[in-house]
Amino acid sequence: MSKILRVNMTDQKVKSEDVPEKYRLIGGRGLTSAITCDEVPPTCHPLGPNNKITFAPGIVTGSGAPTAGRLSVGCKSPLTGGIKEANSGGIASDKLARLGIKAIIVEGQPKDKGKFWVLKVNKDGAELMPAEAGWLGNGLYEAYPKMLKKFGEKVGIISIGVAGEMLMSMAGICVNDPENRPSRYAGRGGVGAVMGSKGLKAIIVDETGGSSVSLADSEAFNTGRKKLTDALRQHDITKPGGTLNTYGTAALVNVINEAGAFPTRNFSSGRFEGASKISGETINETCKKRGGVGATGHRGCTGCIIQCSNVYPKEDGTELVSCQEYESVWSLGANCGIDSLDVTGELVRLCNDYGLDTIEAGATIGVAMEAGLAKFGDGKKAIELMHEIGKGTPLGHILGGGAALTADTFGIVRCPTVKRQSMPAYEPRAIKGIGVTYATSTMGADHTSGYTIAPEILGVSGKMDPASKGVEKAEASRNFQYATAFIDSSGHCLFIAFAILDIPSGLEGMVEECNGVLGTNWTVDDVGRIGGDIVKMERAFNEAAGFTNVDDRIPEFMKYEMLPPHNVVYDVPDEVLDKVHNP
Amino acid sequence: MSKILRVNMTDQKVKSEDVPEKYRLIGGRGLTSAITCDEVPPTCHPLGPNNKITFAPGIVTGSGAPTAGRLSVGCKSPLTGGIKEANSGGIASDKLARLGIKAIIVEGQPKDKGKFWVLKVNKDGAELMPAEAGWLGNGLYEAYPKMLKKFGEKVGIISIGVAGEMLMSMAGICVNDPENRPSRYAGRGGVGAVMGSKGLKAIIVDETGGSSVSLADSEAFNTGRKKLTDALRQHDITKPGGTLNTYGTAALVNVINEAGAFPTRNFSSGRFEGASKISGETINETCKKRGGVGATGHRGCTGCIIQCSNVYPKEDGTELVSCQEYESVWSLGANCGIDSLDVTGELVRLCNDYGLDTIEAGATIGVAMEAGLAKFGDGKKAIELMHEIGKGTPLGHILGGGAALTADTFGIVRCPTVKRQSMPAYEPRAIKGIGVTYATSTMGADHTSGYTIAPEILGVSGKMDPASKGVEKAEASRNFQYATAFIDSSGHCLFIAFAILDIPSGLEGMVEECNGVLGTNWTVDDVGRIGGDIVKMERAFNEAAGFTNVDDRIPEFMKYEMLPPHNVVYDVPDEVLDKVHNP
Repeated sequence: MSKILRVNMTDQKVKSEDVPEKYRLIGGRGLTSAITCDEVPPTCHPLGPNNKITFAPGIVTGSGAPTAGRLSVGCKSPLTGGIKEANSGGIASDKLARLGIKAIIVEGQPKDKGKFWVLKVNKDGAELMPAEAGWLGNGLYEAYPKMLKKFGEKVGIISIGVAGEMLMSMAGICVNDPENRPSRYAGRGGVGAVMGSKGLKAIIVDETGGSSVSLADSEAFNTGRKKLTDALRQHDITKPGGTLNTYGTAALVNVINEAGAFPTRNFSSGRFEGASKISGETINETCKKRGGVGATGHRGCTGCIIQCSNVYPKEDGTELVSCQEYESVWSLGANCGIDSLDVTGELVRLCNDYGLDTIEAGATIGVAMEAGLAKFGDGKKAIELMHEIGKGTPLGHILGGGAALTADTFGIVRCPTVKRQSMPAYEPRAIKGIGVTYATSTMGADHTSGYTIAPEILGVSGKMDPASKGVEKAEASRNFQYATAFIDSSGHCLFIAFAILDIPSGLEGMVEECNGVLGTNWTVDDVGRIGGDIVKMERAFNEAAGFTNVDDRIPEFMKYEMLPPHNVVYDVPDEVLDKVHNP
Repeated sequence: MSKILRVNMTDQKVKSEDVPEKYRLIGGRGLTSAITCDEVPPTCHPLGPNNKITFAPGIVTGSGAPTAGRLSVGCKSPLTGGIKEANSGGIASDKLARLGIKAIIVEGQPKDKGKFWVLKVNKDGAELMPAEAGWLGNGLYEAYPKMLKKFGEKVGIISIGVAGEMLMSMAGICVNDPENRPSRYAGRGGVGAVMGSKGLKAIIVDETGGSSVSLADSEAFNTGRKKLTDALRQHDITKPGGTLNTYGTAALVNVINEAGAFPTRNFSSGRFEGASKISGETINETCKKRGGVGATGHRGCTGCIIQCSNVYPKEDGTELVSCQEYESVWSLGANCGIDSLDVTGELVRLCNDYGLDTIEAGATIGVAMEAGLAKFGDGKKAIELMHEIGKGTPLGHILGGGAALTADTFGIVRCPTVKRQSMPAYEPRAIKGIGVTYATSTMGADHTSGYTIAPEILGVSGKMDPASKGVEKAEASRNFQYATAFIDSSGHCLFIAFAILDIPSGLEGMVEECNGVLGTNWTVDDVGRIGGDIVKMERAFNEAAGFTNVDDRIPEFMKYEMLPPHNVVYDVPDEVLDKVHNP
């Protein structure tokens, strides 16, 4: 039977608890958010003893469902001051699920500051042990092999880097990929700092002796699994040899740049003259040209049939980094005026090594360039700034605190954040609906929480004019936010959304998989209801933490600074924004 | 006739406007807060083009009323994100009033960042001129003589230091004292950064040809003036040779330390073993012992009959600094574990030189010491940290951003701020009522906005148990907040409060002075009503800026960390805090 592990860092005790009835039919984000809401005082200090951090596989993780290996991480965010759920691919979540672990709740705080532990989880239970010196203070490319040597090559590792050890608000939590790189991240909102504040360096998951998640209705599951698999294999974006498999997420670079919505040089333009040099097409060509280990269509996560990852090679064909995502080549590229994949690759590698959210990192370097700490386009200096973070210098602590902290420190007004979390790679002035999501998400600026880009740009689930600013944008954002909360709870990667939005049987398949695991009788109509309940619960947490609709706004500068090339401002009325959560 | 000057920094135009009827019967804080509420969008960026900063003398400033030379400065605060009023002594406010200037509103923003202007005001009007190179980038001890050389020895100077030029959130606005030192400050809330964001280095006030403020009812005024003067000269705290005149504000050091409420080493204790070494008594003795220019009972502000200032001498009798206030010797002394007046004097001098709020500066160094940047008690290192601010290094920008920013940057949980403004020198765990004021003030943690220390410690206006935590504390704080808003509007120094609270004719006198200037028929019963209206207006601004009652709280750590020596936590119920503004 599945269980919840409760890890108390104050006295280093680990307890195994039965899963309460109210948590039985939920997983992933639905579960981590529920535990945060139930157990964390909304006004507590995010790095203090009263915050908790929860890790959970999704409902169908570990069941053999396709592309369903997400690990959800939930807590109160030191970046936003509100609730936070970030989720990661990699290999650890599947292993947790196969050990029958529904969630791990980490609470309390050790008395000794600066001391770190590792939680070892296997079929016999879990125990805390002191982190060894060699695992701390170094990059994860150095620490991971050492941990693997200690615990075996087949364990899942859920770990913070030095940024998390130093409590920086842009610290993420890293999960190893199938080839044991430190490359997959629950990146956003400073979840790594919360893990660091608990004195927890890593969770090691050894699934030896574990087994596939038990099914309440294997027929429903198998039917659903087949429907979803077929849909994923059929949709142009997710099919083998399709867009994601061939070009990776960076396939978006040229598309969004063409739309004039590719934030450039700290959100001062929507078009980057160097976009084609950092595009998915160029990644693909470079992998082919340089050969060696270079590859697109790489699998970064257990059980993934989309395989959107890549291994980007150096000139000599050896590995520079895996992987160069759309968000990363944008944030560390265009947003810093940098048009070299070799530079963005090095910057991504450093983010992976130090344990940083690449979106927040690039947005922050953009703000730092605005503040005069480097010139836009100066890749060498951008790399130096990243090393400041790793070294934990005062400047590194500023940058490690994220874009909003950096802007506050240097008095920069052009700060592209909502709820103090930096915006991803879509300019809300040019694509209004994604701005509605940025403004109203419970997570701060976040594209994944309500990806209206699908209809506004990609023609997925219908078409919407990106420039329209009426109540239809509030409705679209709400629908996406609710559906996303369900997908994030199921354990599937959000990239199944393209297929399930366009192919009705795919959506049915996702729901039937859940029914198969849980024994429920959900229909596709339940997706919005269940997802909506999760979003409302998260929002109630934020309200209790002091958020109001004033926090559901795009930064003021976007309302008076015109964005080239289309010379647009953000002009979605506040009333439309308020309609998202008050229909 | 009095007028309002409107200075537009976008096009460098200055206009003189008639005073609207609605502003006729108000001045000082009442006026600056009203203009902020009427003209500043509550959600604007504090350092952006839509914030405005307003300067105003009080109602009776320039009339010859005693101790009434305060200058009110109002804007949206870059430190708190809410409304801000800070006021200063010195000599400039009286001159503005004598030129018939009811307020100066500075709005817009120059296109050229980093370029600075000076506003020259005299009887013929006002004009902007470029700041000369020698006035910028240097300490004010160097810049003030240069400005005086240019504009004459008798002008009032209202200026920012380098901290304001660099847009730091602990930057104050400095006013020269009667001997032209850069020593009196509208210190709190980052008003200096807002002035800096306007590209305005200084306002130079030449009162040549000005005249005393005209009186609507000179009999009422003279009666009131005599009553207030007599009360001030009669009360033990404010009379000649009384507490403030003899020992200065630092007379409180031993009193508050004895009460176990003297925040020590970043609010980790309420008692400092070195308190007596930095007390008002020791300042007085040192001035006598070292001789030379050393003096207590010094006059820092035009028309003051209390004269609480001091000139603190070096060992050789030459001047180190004027003046060593209670708040400054606490923040830069006990709160950093420093027990030397020579060190606190040097630190105060640097605050005056760079243009910093001494309270925020000391609280920030305390947090920095907590973060390991220096050891508590290390005065040499504290001085070095202060120089980092002046030099504008990355570390200096962190510190210059204040205690909350410093805590965020280094992941420090023990951060003694409310609404991101640092607490002054009274521990709320030991004196509950002042905590109610810290929590609920419209200004962030601020003793001057509702000084319940009077009844809780000093026995002024009756006696209250400092440990009580009932609704009587909400009522006391509310009454003090309302009365203070009136006093801050009148133009009097808040130190008249002791006399007017204990001596009924003193209170009558203050009101009658106002009636004399304005032609009103206010009675003492109007004080709370008028002050209350100001506080409610400020609170409405904060609500529109996104504040809720969650922001009206003492930091979480004070609720679970026991404060020595009395081992108390902050346990005033939230319901009591909420009663302050919702009786």
